[in-house]
Amino acid sequence: MLGRDEVACCAPMVREPLGEEAAAELSRMFKALSDPIRLRLLSLIASYEGGEACVCDLIGPFEVSQPTISHHLKVLREAGLVGSERRGTWVYYWVLPEALAKLSALLQIPAVSAQAPA
Amino acid sequence: MLGRDEVACCAPMVREPLGEEAAAELSRMFKALSDPIRLRLLSLIASYEGGEACVCDLIGPFEVSQPTISHHLKVLREAGLVGSERRGTWVYYWVLPEALAKLSALLQIPAVSAQAPA
Repeated sequence: MLGRDEVACCAPMVREPLGEEAAAELSRMFKALSDPIRLRLLSLIASYEGGEACVCDLIGPFEVSQPTISHHLKVLREAGLVGSERRGTWVYYWVLPEALAKLSALLQIPAVSAQAPA
Repeated sequence: MLGRDEVACCAPMVREPLGEEAAAELSRMFKALSDPIRLRLLSLIASYEGGEACVCDLIGPFEVSQPTISHHLKVLREAGLVGSERRGTWVYYWVLPEALAKLSALLQIPAVSAQAPA
C-alpha cells in the first residue's frame, strides 16, 4: 500500500535498488537540476503568484543574458520539469508538480530507516 | 511551523525563491545524482540490509571497472550524500539520510499548491 507521500511511479530508492531504465530517466531529471541558475529559475517559476511566470519576469533576477535564460528554460522543459505556452508576445512557464513529486518521493527516507538506532 | 516532512534547513522551493548560495550548494548535490550509475549505487547502498554496503558488494551489479565505481563513490561522498569508513580490507558506505531528506523536502510540493484548481 502506498503511503500518503508516495507517488505510484517511484518508491523511495532506499527501499529497493533502482533499475537501469529508471536510473537513466531520473538521472536526466537530476541533470536538469544540477545547475544553480536552473534551480533558481525553477524555484522562481514555482513560487510565482498563480504558479506560472512570464519569461519576461524571469530575466531580471539573473545577471546573464536572455538567450542564456532561454537555454536553461529549454533544458528544464525537455527534462519534463516545467510546461510552457506562448500567449501573445510572451512565453509562460509553470512547474509540472508530478515531476517534482516523483523526485521528492524517490529521495524520501522512510521514517523507520531514518530513525533506526545506530 | 514546520510540517512533519520538512527539514528545518530547506523549505520547499515552491514556497519561496531559492537564494544564490543555497542554489549553488544544492546544484552540487543534484550533479552527483545526475549520473545513472551513481543513482543506482546510492540506491543499492541505501537499500542494503543494515543500511551499509561494502565496496566489494557494489562492483558486481555493474558492467564497469572497479576504479570507475570507486570514482563514482568518491563523487557521492564529496557531495555529502554518503559516508564511508575503512574496516580491514574493505571500505564500507552508507547513505547520509539528512542529505536525502534535505533534497526531498526541497522538491516537495505542498498539498495545497499541488492540488489547487486550475
